[in-house]
Parts: sequence; structure tokens; C-alpha cells
Amino acid sequence: MKKLTAAFQGERGAFSEEAARKLLGPDVVVLPCQRFEEVFQAVAMKKADAAVVPIENTLHGSIHENYDHLLRFQLPIIGETNLRIVHNLMAHGKIRFRDIRRVYSHPVALNQCLRFFAENPQIERVQFYDTAGSVKHLMENPEPGAAAIASSVAAEYYGAHIVKRSIEDDRQNFTRFFLLRREATPRPASRKGDWKTSIVFNLRNVPGALFRAMSVFALRDINLGKIESRPLRGKPWEYHFYVDFLEHVDAEVAQRALGHLGEFADAVHVLGCYPRGA
Amino acid sequence: MKKLTAAFQGERGAFSEEAARKLLGPDVVVLPCQRFEEVFQAVAMKKADAAVVPIENTLHGSIHENYDHLLRFQLPIIGETNLRIVHNLMAHGKIRFRDIRRVYSHPVALNQCLRFFAENPQIERVQFYDTAGSVKHLMENPEPGAAAIASSVAAEYYGAHIVKRSIEDDRQNFTRFFLLRREATPRPASRKGDWKTSIVFNLRNVPGALFRAMSVFALRDINLGKIESRPLRGKPWEYHFYVDFLEHVDAEVAQRALGHLGEFADAVHVLGCYPRGA
Repeated sequence: MKKLTAAFQGERGAFSEEAARKLLGPDVVVLPCQRFEEVFQAVAMKKADAAVVPIENTLHGSIHENYDHLLRFQLPIIGETNLRIVHNLMAHGKIRFRDIRRVYSHPVALNQCLRFFAENPQIERVQFYDTAGSVKHLMENPEPGAAAIASSVAAEYYGAHIVKRSIEDDRQNFTRFFLLRREATPRPASRKGDWKTSIVFNLRNVPGALFRAMSVFALRDINLGKIESRPLRGKPWEYHFYVDFLEHVDAEVAQRALGHLGEFADAVHVLGCYPRGA
Repeated sequence: MKKLTAAFQGERGAFSEEAARKLLGPDVVVLPCQRFEEVFQAVAMKKADAAVVPIENTLHGSIHENYDHLLRFQLPIIGETNLRIVHNLMAHGKIRFRDIRRVYSHPVALNQCLRFFAENPQIERVQFYDTAGSVKHLMENPEPGAAAIASSVAAEYYGAHIVKRSIEDDRQNFTRFFLLRREATPRPASRKGDWKTSIVFNLRNVPGALFRAMSVFALRDINLGKIESRPLRGKPWEYHFYVDFLEHVDAEVAQRALGHLGEFADAVHVLGCYPRGA
């Protein structure tokens, strides 16, 4: 069987690569891309079989750019996973913790380890463009007293030695990733288990519009996950709404809700139906 | 009467300065800051009387960082305005259009003038950290064949000559700005005219929670403006919701709606009540 190729944004060893392995197994072939748009293009242009993109982080909120790409490329969402973001301190060779004086990483990662830096004032923070990129840099240019903060996948890939595990301030730091392909998977024979459906629609700027949109789900006891809005180009102060609801798209109750929504919302579009992530 | 000082993010001549003049009059004293956080701090620490911050753009969406600062600093919103973003081509001295070969500006501004660059392939785009900063740079370091893209306020401030007005692709490009002070203005004697109230609240992750929150307004015929969500720290997949509704906060119907919301939402907080912007 041909191995799947998954595109993701970032260097080898990025958290997105960890998510790709969680979603597609350890044998997945990976295609790192510089920008999110290139990840979507890689699948659309058949350079990759699947894309793995972050959509939301529990500390930073939605990755809005990827919502826009979901609408533009219309690659179906076929899976999701939630990854806990664990920051590890790693270095070249057998450096001892007490010898570390400088730590390279992405500014967001450095900012998520403030307690570690407060407890170790002898260590200087140095900003780098990417977490995994900082490990790569350190392994290619060994520097006495220098370390990096990145995922354990990055440590493994670049052969770095983990000096201290899980130095992040807040353990409630999760990123939700979507798995996208060119075509939706065939409908599963059994609809057992928890399913999620992601949709997008436009609402005209009329009183009570969002209330009515929510009501098509609430009146049918369909639970909502996330709701997100993005501006509608050319129509100032109108929005696309992205909603996840906890039901299989083929369930009768979901079909009725979508029909009801279509009575007053424009451009109702199903982005995907997939098993709910752990 | 002492003149008001308004803090904003960016160089002198930034769009935020244009918004500050629109909100506070041409005589306002301005305090440019590098980062949004510094703008809020300037008012909280009494270095400025007011802050003017962008909250939403009709092409790019919400400025989420400022939603987080609104909650953290709790400076009351006392006004809003919508500014059309007009990009002008400007240069040092009396350069003729046909002699321009290079244009400096912020990447977002360059990307909003793609038609202009397609029609003028002889002109190269050069990225700069700030729109107004690119004019400042050009006026301090005159360079033959070079121009900048920025607001007319920047042209005026730095004494640049506008070569071509309004070269942006999309005229439906508006930014909404909030005016913040340390204390809310005294309640106006008359509540005539259109008022807006901005609130923030938390919802527990229970079925139908957002539907019930919307219903407290819809059932009382109160129209909603914008709704925005931001993650709740320490509670993965729960959110702060920011809602603008079109009613004076002191109106009985608004007070009843807020009371109703408080029956099931946590931490209901009024961020401000202000006349609706044009």
C-alpha cells in the first residue's frame, strides 16, 4: 500500500508534524511547507494526499487565516485531533543543565515558559522564527551553553538531547488540528460514536439573524461546538459564520437543521463530517 | 481648557492618528506607541487621557489582541468611529509619476493595492514595518525614483507630496476604532440617538448556552452588532464572548436583558456605552 503524504506548515519536528503522526500513524510521509496557504495548495495540486492544519489553540484562540483557507480551497475536513503543547528544553550532546546560558525558540514558546525563566535568571531568551527551526539551527551550529525549546518530535528528528521536559507554564495548552483531503471519505457504514460536522454560512445583517441560526440547532437538541465569524469581503460589517455541531451530517435531525438554516442563511456549505477528537 | 492627549499604536500619521482626530478633534495631542499593550498602559498609568485602538477591519476581521486588552485593562469604551482606509501614493518633492520605480509600505498596504502594481509593472514593491514609517523614512532619506503608500495624514505630517490618491483595490475597506478613557463619561441627560453597548461574558460549555445568551436580546427585540469569542485561560474549549448591542445600557430593556443573561452566564461585564459611529 502506498504511504500517505501529509503537508503541514513549519520545519520538520513542528507540532503540526506531531499532529500528522497522531492522525495518520507513524509511517506518514511528511511535506513541510513555509506558509499555511502552501499547505492547502499542496493538497489541491496533488503534491500531497492530506493536509494537517491548526485551527484553534486554547490560549491564543482561532488561527483565523486557516478559516479563510478552508472556505477558499474547500478541501473536506475528514478528521480532527487535540494535541497538548508540551515544551521541552533540549540541546546538542550531553550538556548539563547548569551550563545552559541561552535558549533559542519562537517568541510564543518563550512566552509560554515564563516561570522557567523566572526561576533560572542566568538563562537568556533568544527569539527564533520557529520552534523546530531553533533545534535544527543548534544541531547544525553547535554553540556552548545554548539550548532550544521545542516538541519531543523535534528532539527525536534532529537528534537533540532533552535536558528538561514540560517546562511550559500552563498545562491547559491544547491545539486543535484538522485533517483535510481532496475528497471526503465514503460515508461510514456505521454512524456509531461521536461525530462532528463543520459548516459555514452567511447571514444578512438583519435583527435576530444569529439567534435564528442558533435556534435551528437548539430547537432540535443539537449541541454546538465552536462558533467563529470572519468578515465577508465587499460587504462591510457582514460575516461568514463557521459552526461545528455534534451530529453526523447524514442524521435526519442534522439534515432538517441544515434545511431550516437554508431558509434564511446564504451559502450554507458543509466543510466536513468527521469523528470527534479525544 | 487643557488639551486631551490620545495614545495610539504606530508612527505619527498612522490611520489610528486619523481616527483620533476624527474622534477628538484636530487639536488633540497625540502619543504614538510601539505596541497595542503600551497604548492601554499609557491611559491606565495616566500618561495619556485617552486611547484610540482599532478593533475590526472589514477585510481582515477582528484585531483579537485588543479584545484581550479590553478585558484585562477594563478601560471604558466611550466612543467609536469607522474610518475608510484610503491608500495614497506619495513622495519627496515634485517627483513625476513616470519617474517612480520603487514603492515602500507595510506589506498589508502593498497587498491592498495589487491592481495598481499590475497596471504599473515598472514599479517595484518594497516592504516596510509601517505605512507612516515608510513616508518618514523617505522624507529623511530622499531617494530618486522612490515613493511610499500611506494615509493623507502621514503626507501632511511629513510634508510629502501626494502623487496619486486612493490607489487601493477595494473601497469597502473600513476599520472600526474604539475611544477609551480611564473613567466612563457621566450618563448623558438625553438618550436620544443611536447608542451601542459593548459587553463581555463567559458561558459554561453546556448545550444551548450560546442560544440562550442570544435569546435574552432577541426576545426583547434588541439588535446585536458584532459577536466575537476569545479563549478562556485555564478552561480549554470555553470562551469569553464579546457582544455589542444597539441600546443604551441604562434603558430598562437593556437592564432586564443583562439581568436575564446573568442568570446563566458568568462574569457579565459592561465594557462601555457610546453613541453609534457613522
